[in-house]
Parts: sequence; C-alpha cells; structure tokens
Amino acid sequence: MSMNSFGHLFRVTTWGESHGPALGATVDGCPPGVEITPEMIQQWLDKRKPGQNKYTTQRREADEVKILSGTFEGVTTGTPIQLMIENTDQRSKDYGDIKDKFRPGHADITYFQKYGIRDYRGGGRSSARETASRVAAGGLAREAIKAIAPNVQITGYMVQMGPHKINRDAFDWDQIEQNPFWVPDAQAATDWATYLDGLRKSGSSVGAIIEITARNVPAGIGAPVYGKLDTDLAAAMMSINAVKGVEIGEGMSAAMLTGELNADEIFMGNDGQPAYTSNHSGGILGGISTGQDIVVRFAVKPTSSILTTRKTITKSGEETEIITKGRHDPCVGIRAVPVGEAMMACVILDHLLLHRGQIGQNRGVIGPQS
Amino acid sequence: MSMNSFGHLFRVTTWGESHGPALGATVDGCPPGVEITPEMIQQWLDKRKPGQNKYTTQRREADEVKILSGTFEGVTTGTPIQLMIENTDQRSKDYGDIKDKFRPGHADITYFQKYGIRDYRGGGRSSARETASRVAAGGLAREAIKAIAPNVQITGYMVQMGPHKINRDAFDWDQIEQNPFWVPDAQAATDWATYLDGLRKSGSSVGAIIEITARNVPAGIGAPVYGKLDTDLAAAMMSINAVKGVEIGEGMSAAMLTGELNADEIFMGNDGQPAYTSNHSGGILGGISTGQDIVVRFAVKPTSSILTTRKTITKSGEETEIITKGRHDPCVGIRAVPVGEAMMACVILDHLLLHRGQIGQNRGVIGPQS
Amino acid sequence: MSMNSFGHLFRVTTWGESHGPALGATVDGCPPGVEITPEMIQQWLDKRKPGQNKYTTQRREADEVKILSGTFEGVTTGTPIQLMIENTDQRSKDYGDIKDKFRPGHADITYFQKYGIRDYRGGGRSSARETASRVAAGGLAREAIKAIAPNVQITGYMVQMGPHKINRDAFDWDQIEQNPFWVPDAQAATDWATYLDGLRKSGSSVGAIIEITARNVPAGIGAPVYGKLDTDLAAAMMSINAVKGVEIGEGMSAAMLTGELNADEIFMGNDGQPAYTSNHSGGILGGISTGQDIVVRFAVKPTSSILTTRKTITKSGEETEIITKGRHDPCVGIRAVPVGEAMMACVILDHLLLHRGQIGQNRGVIGPQS
Amino acid sequence: MSMNSFGHLFRVTTWGESHGPALGATVDGCPPGVEITPEMIQQWLDKRKPGQNKYTTQRREADEVKILSGTFEGVTTGTPIQLMIENTDQRSKDYGDIKDKFRPGHADITYFQKYGIRDYRGGGRSSARETASRVAAGGLAREAIKAIAPNVQITGYMVQMGPHKINRDAFDWDQIEQNPFWVPDAQAATDWATYLDGLRKSGSSVGAIIEITARNVPAGIGAPVYGKLDTDLAAAMMSINAVKGVEIGEGMSAAMLTGELNADEIFMGNDGQPAYTSNHSGGILGGISTGQDIVVRFAVKPTSSILTTRKTITKSGEETEIITKGRHDPCVGIRAVPVGEAMMACVILDHLLLHRGQIGQNRGVIGPQS
Repeated sequence: MSMNSFGHLFRVTTWGESHGPALGATVDGCPPGVEITPEMIQQWLDKRKPGQNKYTTQRREADEVKILSGTFEGVTTGTPIQLMIENTDQRSKDYGDIKDKFRPGHADITYFQKYGIRDYRGGGRSSARETASRVAAGGLAREAIKAIAPNVQITGYMVQMGPHKINRDAFDWDQIEQNPFWVPDAQAATDWATYLDGLRKSGSSVGAIIEITARNVPAGIGAPVYGKLDTDLAAAMMSINAVKGVEIGEGMSAAMLTGELNADEIFMGNDGQPAYTSNHSGGILGGISTGQDIVVRFAVKPTSSILTTRKTITKSGEETEIITKGRHDPCVGIRAVPVGEAMMACVILDHLLLHRGQIGQNRGVIGPQS
Repeated sequence: MSMNSFGHLFRVTTWGESHGPALGATVDGCPPGVEITPEMIQQWLDKRKPGQNKYTTQRREADEVKILSGTFEGVTTGTPIQLMIENTDQRSKDYGDIKDKFRPGHADITYFQKYGIRDYRGGGRSSARETASRVAAGGLAREAIKAIAPNVQITGYMVQMGPHKINRDAFDWDQIEQNPFWVPDAQAATDWATYLDGLRKSGSSVGAIIEITARNVPAGIGAPVYGKLDTDLAAAMMSINAVKGVEIGEGMSAAMLTGELNADEIFMGNDGQPAYTSNHSGGILGGISTGQDIVVRFAVKPTSSILTTRKTITKSGEETEIITKGRHDPCVGIRAVPVGEAMMACVILDHLLLHRGQIGQNRGVIGPQS
Repeated sequence: MSMNSFGHLFRVTTWGESHGPALGATVDGCPPGVEITPEMIQQWLDKRKPGQNKYTTQRREADEVKILSGTFEGVTTGTPIQLMIENTDQRSKDYGDIKDKFRPGHADITYFQKYGIRDYRGGGRSSARETASRVAAGGLAREAIKAIAPNVQITGYMVQMGPHKINRDAFDWDQIEQNPFWVPDAQAATDWATYLDGLRKSGSSVGAIIEITARNVPAGIGAPVYGKLDTDLAAAMMSINAVKGVEIGEGMSAAMLTGELNADEIFMGNDGQPAYTSNHSGGILGGISTGQDIVVRFAVKPTSSILTTRKTITKSGEETEIITKGRHDPCVGIRAVPVGEAMMACVILDHLLLHRGQIGQNRGVIGPQS
Repeated sequence: MSMNSFGHLFRVTTWGESHGPALGATVDGCPPGVEITPEMIQQWLDKRKPGQNKYTTQRREADEVKILSGTFEGVTTGTPIQLMIENTDQRSKDYGDIKDKFRPGHADITYFQKYGIRDYRGGGRSSARETASRVAAGGLAREAIKAIAPNVQITGYMVQMGPHKINRDAFDWDQIEQNPFWVPDAQAATDWATYLDGLRKSGSSVGAIIEITARNVPAGIGAPVYGKLDTDLAAAMMSINAVKGVEIGEGMSAAMLTGELNADEIFMGNDGQPAYTSNHSGGILGGISTGQDIVVRFAVKPTSSILTTRKTITKSGEETEIITKGRHDPCVGIRAVPVGEAMMACVILDHLLLHRGQIGQNRGVIGPQS
C-alpha cells in the first residue's frame, strides 16, 4: 500500500515537494523494449511548464527531466524507471509572510492537522508542482502505449472556463494547439483571453472544466468491479490538485436522461466490429471499453491564491486576514490539460497491460464464426 | 492486486453473480473487538432490498446475510469476516430471449469482448445485485466506525430524478425516511411519485443524482496524493453500477466560481476548533478532512432494461432489435442510496484506521499552546 | 493490503476458523475459460483430509468444497471464485479445558496479545484447518496452469521426519503415492511407519522436511527484486502453519559451497534450449526461472499438542501446567505435503500470468538468429 | 502491485542499476516527526560499502546518500522520502568480455530470457549494488523505530563461512564490531581470515550464513495468515541477492525436534510479562511476536564471479568457456550483514505501524485484572 502511488501493473509513485531539491516519479512495471529518450518526455513537461505565457504562474522552472534508471541504450529494460526533475527556481522567501497563517481553500490547514508539520514553503506535496512528476510518467506511458496499441490518441482540451463554455458545434481538433487555453473553438479562445486578462489584472482566479479524449482504444479493456476503467479514471482525475468533479460520457447529465435516450444503439461497422449510433457511455460499459472514444471530464476549482483579503486563523488559533501575493495561475485549468492527458495515458496503458495478463486469447469475437 | 477489492486497511472483496447460488463480501482488516450481529447488517440490506414498493424491481430476494467467519461470541476477532447472502429468486428463464442479443447501454457486450464468456443470466457480476455485498460490508463498517468515532453520521438521499431537482431551501433531514425516494423534501417526494408512476407504466427508465453526507468526521483524516479521501470516494462511487459522474462539494460547478467565492473563510468555532463560513470544499482540502460535512454526489444513468425496441446485434454479428422484459427498476437511483452510504462508510472507516496507523500522536493542534 | 491474501494477479484470500460454520478461499484473477468442477478440486482436499490413516488427526471432516461463484456452465468467467468448505465435525467441547491456559509452542498466546480476543476453540485462524482453503485454491490453480503451460508437474513429498532422512540414491517418483508419508523411498516408508507408531503411542510429535518440485516450468518467469519467484515461494511456504525454514535448491547448504561447485555450467540441450550440468540453483537465478526443476523445501516444527505435561500460564498470569488431549497429528508434515503443493501451484500460476502481462513477445531467444 | 517494492505501510521501492547514473529508494509511509539526517543513514551505508578491506570487492564507491524529499528542517513530514546514491566508479569496461557470454550461476541468462534485453554492464538490477538502496531505507527505518519502540536493537553477524561455524558457547556480542566478518567469536574471526585469504588468492569464492537478531520487540506485532512476521521476514531475506535459504528460530532443524523439546515453556517474568524457558520459536508464534528475541538466519551462495574456467553458452547459442575477472567479493556474506539488518529494520517498523493501525487499545493484557 502506498498513498503516493497509482496504477496496477504500470505503477507510478510520485515524490518531492515544491521547494525541495528535486521531485520525480518512480515507475515500476513499464514493459521492456520501449524506446525512450528524455526528449520524448520533455515535450510534455514543456507543455505543462509554468511561465510560458501571461496566463500561467511566472515561476521559472526549466523542468528538465533526467532518466536515472531502467533504460539501457535508449530502451526500457523492464526495471524501475526513475524520472527526476530538479527544482531550480524555489524562491521560498515569497512565502515568508504566510508562515503562520492558513490560506482559505488551501490544504495547508489539513496537512497540519494530519501531520503536525507546517511546511509553509509553497504547499509541499499539495502544490501543483507535484503534477510535473505525473506529466513525466505520462510521457513514458504514451511511448509504451505506442508499442502495444499504436493507434491510440490521447488529447486534452478545455471546455469551460468560469461561466464560458465552448460551442460544441464549432468543435475543431486543429484549434487545440493554436491557443494558450488548449480550447477546440477559435471564438472561445478569443473570448476567454479577454475574460482571463481581466481576472488576472484584478488578482482573482477562476475554475474550469477539462475534457480528455482517448481515441482508438481497443474494445474489451477494463475490469470489474473496483478496477473498472472508469473507476480508475475517476480516481486518477480526482487525485489531481483542485479537482472537485469527474464525469464519464454523459456524466452528471445522465441523471436527466431516459433509458431510450441513453441507450447507444449497436450496429455492425464497416470494419466488421460493433459500432454505436451515439456515445452517451463515454466509451465504457460495465467498466470495460467499447472501442468508442473514451471521454472524461473534470472540474478544477479556482486557486486559493488571490489578491483579495480573506478571513483566516493562525497556527495558534488567532483570527486574522490574509492576502496571497505569490506567483500563481489565474486559471489552473490551463496547466491541468497536460496533467489530465498524462493520467489518461497511465490508466490506458495500465489496462492494456492488465488485458495482456489476464485475458490472452480468450477474448470474445463478435461475428459469423463465433 | 485484486480487481474485485477496495480499501487500504479495511479491505472488502465482493464475489458472486446475479444468478449463482450465493454472493457476498470477504472483509479483511476489520479491527477486533467490534460487536456485530447479522441483524445489525440486515437493516441496511433491507433498505436496499428489491420489491419493497412499486418503484423497484419485483424480484423477490430475502437478502438474508450470514456471518461465516471472523467473529467469536458476537465480537470481531481481527480475522477475515465472510458475509454471505444466498440467492433465492433467480428465475433465470426470464432472461432466455436475450441469450444471443446484446442490450444497448448494458455491459453484456463488453464483458463478452473482454472475457469471451456470455453469461446471459441477468448480467453476472455487472448486475446491480452485486451491490448487496457492498451494503453488507458497509453495515459492518458502520459498526466499526462507532467504536472509533462514535459521532460520525452517514446519510444518503436523492437530490435529482430525471429533470426534477430538490428544493435546497426546503431541505429537511427528517423527510428522508418518510418516502420511498429517500428525498429530503416532502413536495419533491409527492411530485416524483407521479413522475415515476408514468415512467414505470410506459416501461421507461430514468437517471438520478444521489448525495451522501458524512457528518462529524474528525479533521485530519485522508492522505496525499493518490490515497486522498476524495480520490477514494470518487473511485468508490464510480465503481457502483450505472454511475457516470462524481462530485465533491461544489463538484462540476466549481468551474464557475472565482477564488473569492470558492474560499471557505476560516474562524475559530465555539468548540475551540477551526470553523468555516461555507463548505464549497465538501469537507475535504488536499485530500484531507476539514472537520466539516463531507459531501459527495453521484449520477446514475437510467437502466438499459426498457420496453421500447432498440437496435442491436447478436453474438454472431447480425443486426437485430431488442426489448427487455425482465423485472427491473424504473429508477435505479432509489436503491443506489444505501449503496452510496455503504461505500462512504467503508471509505471513512478505512481512513480512520489509516490515521491511527500512520499518525498517532503527531497530529497538529491548532490553538494557543501549539 | 490484506493480511489474509497472497498472490499478485492470481489473488487468494482465505477466510474462516477451525470452529466456525465454514471456511474457504476467495480467488480473484483466475483467467476466464478454465474448465473447473468441484471434483477437480476435491481430489486435492481428499489428499489433505484428516483421519485417513492412523498417522493423522482423527477429526472427521468431509471437507466438501462448493463453488459459489465465478463459473458458468463449468468454465471460469474471469470473476471472483468463491470456494467454500463447511465445517461438520467441530466438537468444540474437546477444547474446554484449555479455555484459560496458553499452550507452549502454540499461537494462542500471541493472538491474545495482538487481538485481545481469546478464541479458545481450536486455534481459530492459526489452526491447520485454514490450510484446507489453500488446498482448494491450489486445485483451481493447477487447472488454470494446464490451460497456459500444460506440461508443468507439481509434486510434493517428505524428505525427512525427525532424524530420519530419505536416501537420495533410492529416490523413486513412483513410490510417492504408495505410502501414507508421500515419501519417494520405499525403505524410508517402512522405517518411518515404525518410528511414528512409537511417537503416536507415547503422545509425542515430531517435525519434518517437505520438498516440492515443479517440473517443466518455462524459463523466464519470475521478477526482480521483491517479486522474485523464490521470494514469493519463501513467503508462501513460510506462511504455512508450523513452518520454520525454507530452502531453494541448495538452501542453507549453499553456505558450504565454493563458487566452482555452486556454478551450474551451461550447455545447449537437445531441444535447442539452454541446459545445465547441475541444479544447485533449484531452478531459479536472480528470481527468474531457468527452465530446470524448481525445488523448494520447508521444515515444519512438531505440533504443540502433546500428552506430556508442560509448564505454562493462564490468562490471568498464574503459572500452571498443561496437557493437550485433543485430536492431533503426531507429524503435521504429512498433511503439509498437499499444502506445499498448493502453494507452489498458486505461485507458479501467478508468475505465468504476470509473464503474460508484462513481457509478451519481448522474451529473449537464445540461439543462432538472436 | 510493484515488483520492486516491499512493506505494507512502510513501503520501500528500490530503483537503479549497477552501472547507471544513480540508484536509490523511494520510501512511502514513513511516519511524520522522525528526526533524520543524511549522516544517520550514511553510517549504515558505510558499513556495507565495498573496498573497506581486502575481503570485499575493490570497487570504490563513495555511496553518499542524498535526501531529496520528505523532510523539512531535518524532520520527516509524512510524504515520500527519496534517498538517492549516485554511482561514481562504474568502470564498465571491465565487463566488456562478458558481453555475449552468460555467467554460470548468475542471473544474466534468466534476465535475458525474461526481458529480451542484455544489459551486460555488471548485472543491472541483479547486482549486489541494489542492496545499497535497501541499507539506506533500513537506516531510515531504524530512526523511525526509535520514535515508536526505542528499546529495539537490531544486530547482524555471520555464523558460518564455508564449512566453518561459530562456537555458540563463545558467543560475544562485543566481538561483532571488532573484526571484518561481523562475527561474534574472536577465534572464528582469526580462523576465517586465514581461510578467506586463501580463497581470495586462488580467485575462488564461498557461501555463508548470516543471523539477524532483533531484541526488545514488543509482544503482539505481526499478523495472520500471509502477513505473518515470519512470512514477511522470509520474503525480505530471500529477496536479497544470492540468498538460498531462510530460517526462523530452530529453522530447518525444527524437523528433528519432538514436541516436548520444541515447546518453549511459559512462566511469568520479573517484569510481570510472560517469559519463556527457551526460544526455539525465534520469537514468533503464529506469525506474531512473543516478546523474545526475533532470530532470523539466511544462507548466501558463493558469488559466480571466479577465476576458474567454467563451461557456458553465448547469446547465439554457441558453447564456450568463461572466466570472470571483474572486482568481486570472495564472500558476499560479509557485506550481506548490514543488508540483512536493514531488511529486519524495515519489517519490524512496518509491523509496528500496522499494529498501531489495526489494534489500538484492543491488545490483550495478561495478568490479574484481565
């Protein structure tokens, strides 16, 4: 049992604090024979890296990943892979004035109540900085997936920021890389920029909804009852800092549907495989993939670091007020996009590996000969 | 690793199919010295039991639980507790005409694609019948919680059925036990009865949202980063049949909040403990309890068993149509209430036990002396 | 985490006490498509069953196994398999006079010190009766192994009883089934019968060494560093009641060898696979199988239930004496043979499954083309 | 599930190869509030460090440990602790001539058969170098134990080298630190030096038996049935490179005892706690500690790296011969002493933590009031 680990066969343990010398991911169970270089992982870390535009925290981190173990001549050996990222811009003096005050909406009070340790330097393990380790592990998972199911494509994007939602009718995959919000809707990108500029200048923050889609995942991966693909995805996404809700397919809106509307009718596709008239299920039935797009959404709350004075208490129980002046993200949802992608990659790989182990040739084949 | 188990220290493995001789829960890690009788567990199974009113499936099951191990003279011994429920009303002939057809929106197609086995008798492990095992384990968890944190109260209720939501201003804890929907709003109970009668008569079904609240959970339980209290709750709820979304506190609506609105301000309560002006966090910050109410919601989709013809395929890949005539629930959300309560009880107990093991006397105390 | 479970992918949880209504094994992770009937499992339970000859306890148990879940039409479905054995001859009055006294060499004192519960009825979970559950799970494992690696043969036998060792030069596989001691040496069988008769009549008991050999296990299964095949075997065997030592290949005698003597030289066998001039390694190098026979030995201590008076204390701390008059085995090593076989079967299956999951086609092939 | 991890609550994952840039241990579950400095860990690494005398490999490694995470101001915070040791003397050219040949008695052939990767640089994960990570984790475990059970003392020593055993009658705890073999017998130390000098000069190697004793472990820690203290110790010791056998208390010799001789009789000690007339059990009954010394022994085989020519094969299946000229230990048992101590420390700490979590105040008290 490890509280800082996730995955069944592809097992990732993240370690490291926001203001320590380094952080990273210890990955056990990566199959041997996967070609991997630091550059392959670095591209995803660069996507998550702070300070790339005015909408994310101005903390400057190189976020350079080093592979300390588990590879030989650029190929995984089947042994644990240590991915380390050294912290370079810790600047802990920024945090000095919150040494004794708890921040409303922040985990510093509950960490203190649990551990009895007040690590005031930027949140320790509860900092969003921990997600760099996840993104590194996710980059590795993407390469391992390629070796097993090369057509799988995992893409994240924002679908809501504050009250502003994307226009689903204008959904355009090609737009995602064209704007700082990873939003698949050109008009939304423009509108959101204006909105977020205002928030940023006023020292406020706002929440968001991110959607992650995995395309071309083979049918038949996943497992009952507590190792369901959607159970693992829910845990993976909810474990990300600031996430307060997770949805698969219809999500919370499934409550409003009747059985007639919700049923994705089945026919035979051109490729001789079962196909569906709709995807209310989000690509998962009974915890097992249908072969349709796997669609997960999660909501992140706004960061607690804002320039408005809030009421709080000190360690010694005195009532006081606080303003957080550190470098922070007006909308943490932006940088949550590559984190959500990484978690999806890890879960999909894990279930592809489980499928190999538990099923082998026993899969049911739908068609004339069966 | 077990795909049919959940929990870290309080470890529950459910087993059994809808149409086999029995099903149950193997529980390891229950503390010794907990007084437990079959009757204490039975009350919760009776709450979940089908056929109690016209709104749930007319399958008749006694759902009588037997304790086969782990107790001596009515007290737990610290060894595994086997809770068994024999199936009595299997009536598998009902299911004969769906032997070769897959039901749209049902897991039978993905189970076949994964396992290569077509157990057409009522869904096997994917049947809602599996949740009886959870409810039994949850009943045990409730008794063990009493021995550690006697003030904890876990209550589930419906907050939405189809398009109909409760009126939060009329929220009344005492109403919950007064109607077949476990709804805390007398007017909603009346309205929903009419609505569901119509659905039932037309052979349709509808989704729902259930909320589970745990009161008086001590501050400081939970764990970073993948063993967070909310991560475990998300997994626990998403693992329930038909669940498509899970929310903690504000949930998906957190996306719409600004940092100012979301921050639950802190002051010192009358009991000398930290208190909060609001509970947007749902009682959890950084994966650790704040001492406020823990609030979780989940959405269930409508059952796929409806009387309207839907398009589907057979095992041999032929396109056809299907109507499901079995005994089913027009709104599975009703019977999901005690299941959600059981999952909450198991997760809370698990983290209370973890807290004892990992923290001991090291907890941080907020107040003058600290 | 479950203290009553073992295995990684083939996960067995045993439950039940010596004097409760039933005991059994909850097995998760058995591959689908394995043909299994109660009879296939029963044969191994019959081998372990007490009261079959004068050398084992006269407790009479039918030890009839029921399969409560996880199969459909005689084939495993991939879901948890519940194997239940009802207790029929509990006769707990036998144990009445040891209600307050602890038995020297028995776990009743440590169980009490750990759990604070004094279940005086025959040892509870620490009773050898728990091993019936293991044997049931092992019987299932044997059938699953057949579906993956049909040539594997697992055979257990005694190699020492008290001071009497077998003559390795007279080793005869065919003798094993011909005598009540499962000893591969006809002369030893005769000698031991005389020896044990004497012990039995004097109300004494004695220890033994059991060897389990697995033949035709493919090379390349196992795993570093804490999931080694020998690590898992050591844990599996040490977990059996009364076991005090475990050896792989040369075992403790490896201490006396020089590097020259210990090195199993390698050549190419007639089948084009690597072959070895000797098997000091016991078929395992670096935790991974070599393809040679896997050879494990374990020592069991004598049972503490003897007719000689021993000094002990009561629950209230008074010094006293005890004689144990219950029905017991003069040499528990005899009935440990099928238990050791069962544990070997479970571990081998588990690693065959892990191999499928983690390695796939990546195995190294030794030969001209590689 | 992680093949490179051990422990239930105190969970250690080791990573890194003999010839990579670094290796280390990721430790999750260490309690908060433990004072720890690199120096506290370094002392144990120094004990294991190669090249300290002529009896161990002449590889020169600083083996300097860095604490990269999990502490704040010299105290553990409850979050994962990353212990990293950089490799400095890799000198991989030494290994060039064994690039294509497999070493008899070495894991290189089975690693290749499992993973399909031939990392010829000094054994990769199967190298004894991996044990440095264990020793680092063990050093941390020792400090955490002090915070919970300050009287626990863990001491390892050699009891046999090749055919030479210690004289138990001359056992002297104070001798252990006085000789390069950690042997508690001055005469043996002298004799063994002569013996090993001879072996070393002839380029041979020999096995050994190491004993680890834990004194003052409280009664009542451990767990049935697969999480027994002895089960965990057997796994922990068998997972160490080159170990072929593990014994608890009487170990394999238990086979030769009668029930009368094996029973450790019980009386009341001067401290009002149960005491025993002997310790055949090695301090463990039914997997739970008795409060007596916990005594574990393990045998290591001789290293396969010897100067005598042995027959072997190449990757392409050609038969050939091999001599291993690298820097190696004539008796790896010497450096196995601190490794065994480390594993004992990790297991004891883990069960102390489990005890806190699962038992609390429920322990049985033996004495007048109970």
